[in-house]
Amino acid sequence: MNRNNIRTVVFLLMIVAAGTTTLALAQMKPEDAIRARQSIMHVMALNFGPVAGMAQGKVPYNADVVKRNSAFLDNLSRMAWDGFDPSTKDVKSAALPAIYEQQAKFREAAARLENEAHKLWEVAQSGDEAAVKAQIGAVGKSCGGCHESFRQKQ
Amino acid sequence: MNRNNIRTVVFLLMIVAAGTTTLALAQMKPEDAIRARQSIMHVMALNFGPVAGMAQGKVPYNADVVKRNSAFLDNLSRMAWDGFDPSTKDVKSAALPAIYEQQAKFREAAARLENEAHKLWEVAQSGDEAAVKAQIGAVGKSCGGCHESFRQKQ
Repeated sequence: MNRNNIRTVVFLLMIVAAGTTTLALAQMKPEDAIRARQSIMHVMALNFGPVAGMAQGKVPYNADVVKRNSAFLDNLSRMAWDGFDPSTKDVKSAALPAIYEQQAKFREAAARLENEAHKLWEVAQSGDEAAVKAQIGAVGKSCGGCHESFRQKQ
Repeated sequence: MNRNNIRTVVFLLMIVAAGTTTLALAQMKPEDAIRARQSIMHVMALNFGPVAGMAQGKVPYNADVVKRNSAFLDNLSRMAWDGFDPSTKDVKSAALPAIYEQQAKFREAAARLENEAHKLWEVAQSGDEAAVKAQIGAVGKSCGGCHESFRQKQ
């Protein structure tokens, strides 16, 4: 590895606590945790956009893209949550205080997205277009349900 | 879908040109394309951090995490490039003008990451720890090689 890259890796290691092998967002500085969770959410949106368009008939249906993006969403849906660490509470972002005041409800909403995204991945393997489109709607609903209670209106 | 969610989906559809099923970063407004590519790069870094730590012996080796993160990196490594659209050239970011002046060299460096990340995913399936660690190094080298020429020093 060259020097520039080693510097990058050293920086990255600062975010990896010894012994942990998760993304470990909760162990970052609050600003870094927020940037991480926002990046993850944004990449989710980038992947959900095209499949949402397919479910609404605004983008031609493409089973391969659904398979790829749903596998991606299945993974991404599990990554961001520990970035909503209480240490980030007082840093300005679109996250509402309700996240920290109603943690059980927030975790439930997060788990709903994880479950719906995982189901979408499963249904995508079947090739049943109608079932896939219905499940894309369910994923969208779980995004919106959580945003409704826990994110500042955009 | 509820109203808030429909609003989100409508926004997302704005970034999805009719008929395309890719992430279509090049068709966004320059600021949005930059935000998208930066988010993708950041999620790549979040996923590469732990495996880079394993390759350096600073994080305990975990074959399952390598499998998961390498599948992720394999996909992510192909997502960001069309976000480096010439339309983004004059918006401030860490991307250097060399990207647009030496497009063939940039594309080659991008393809190198894609190939190395794909190889990492392949090697991760084999369970050969030494080979996996060597390939993690190769991925890191392809990150650093591109950053060296095409990204402002951090």
